[in-house]
Amino acid sequence: MNVLIVHAHPEPQSFTTSMLRQAVHALSSQGHEVNVSDLYAMEWNPVASAADFGGRKNEGYLTYALEQRENVATGSIAPDIAAELDKLLACDLLIFSFPLFWCSVPAIMKGWIDRVFVSGKVYGGLRFYDRGGMRGKRALLAYTCGGRDFMFDEQGVHGEMDLMLRHMLRGTLGYAGFKVLPSFIGYHVPYIEQAERTALLQRYGDYLTKLDQLQPLALPTLDAFDEQMRPRAVVAQRDVIA
Amino acid sequence: MNVLIVHAHPEPQSFTTSMLRQAVHALSSQGHEVNVSDLYAMEWNPVASAADFGGRKNEGYLTYALEQRENVATGSIAPDIAAELDKLLACDLLIFSFPLFWCSVPAIMKGWIDRVFVSGKVYGGLRFYDRGGMRGKRALLAYTCGGRDFMFDEQGVHGEMDLMLRHMLRGTLGYAGFKVLPSFIGYHVPYIEQAERTALLQRYGDYLTKLDQLQPLALPTLDAFDEQMRPRAVVAQRDVIA
Repeated sequence: MNVLIVHAHPEPQSFTTSMLRQAVHALSSQGHEVNVSDLYAMEWNPVASAADFGGRKNEGYLTYALEQRENVATGSIAPDIAAELDKLLACDLLIFSFPLFWCSVPAIMKGWIDRVFVSGKVYGGLRFYDRGGMRGKRALLAYTCGGRDFMFDEQGVHGEMDLMLRHMLRGTLGYAGFKVLPSFIGYHVPYIEQAERTALLQRYGDYLTKLDQLQPLALPTLDAFDEQMRPRAVVAQRDVIA
Repeated sequence: MNVLIVHAHPEPQSFTTSMLRQAVHALSSQGHEVNVSDLYAMEWNPVASAADFGGRKNEGYLTYALEQRENVATGSIAPDIAAELDKLLACDLLIFSFPLFWCSVPAIMKGWIDRVFVSGKVYGGLRFYDRGGMRGKRALLAYTCGGRDFMFDEQGVHGEMDLMLRHMLRGTLGYAGFKVLPSFIGYHVPYIEQAERTALLQRYGDYLTKLDQLQPLALPTLDAFDEQMRPRAVVAQRDVIA
């Protein structure tokens, strides 16, 4: 299996970075090929802009997705995007490794998605969800947060974590066509003791050896919708958990 | 009323930018003071990092939120953050104006949140939701997207838009203490004709004259939770819509 881990943390000694090292170790030990894009170390530029395109289809007005399609097709997309896109297209499993910032990914990682999840390859036309460009691949969020697990359940103060992360799980990874595995979450990380951290790293390593046993999140199938994306029949949304 | 509009679009001629101008006009006409932070024009740096702090509480290990608290207190936070924080603290109404990128804000705007929503002022300790630092202020998302409205209702292919944006509505604005007004959404914008665009701008202008008539989103109250954030009683989460 080819694995791409996209990682972002502003502190190289962080626990999240220990999780990254654990993932590289656990996956390499199983014989998988592991690539890491460490966005802070790479000084990744997260800002989608006209500068991403070597040649413009429309010089007078920037339609970002249109220029993505054109510039990927003609090989004139910015080299930093092209390099990441090659890694993305080659991978069987994509892992986003990050600390939760405002119930989402840090901006530097959001900008990896904005710039690398290009129209024409990752999605486009009616190719999304189970017809998305990334179908056949799997994806996983592995993240840390300050809150406790019970704060993120249905009765918790923040509600279910998978609903808070729906924009990532469903709106991004699911939309792109990935099978989305259940997230691995390190709760309360800034406040736990060393023994708990060690146990958490161990659990993460174990988790990564058992990915085939995990049930992917339930996501929409386009078969349930017509060409205008009108539902063919009433769907029980409660069955779509992410 | 003092209004801060934080705006991000990579194309200055975009319809989203017309919405920004409409907002400035509609709000100024009502006698409100309007400040605009146009993030692409400002070349805003979205990457939270050690460089944001003039003096470090802990030089050997970066805990971003801790250094935010310390550096705001001592006046040594980066000048670009300090300037935006002043605008944020002065406003009565915050509007985020943007095109939807991957069911969220563009990275440059996520990085405004990561860096400006500082610990110690915006949140911290047990000050969040109805005890958050921004209590007394209101906030609103005003955004455009390519999809049609029926794709984002309960039976739609993407499910309810407010659930897709929960990380922003509840996890960010609600958490910070804002009263969150219903979003103004321009659907299907890349595909609509000029007459529809004109009508949409008109509706947005009208919307901004009637903010006092809008019912804020239902969000948790900390009164329902104890000091450990355990629920005092079972809450009907279905009543919390955002």
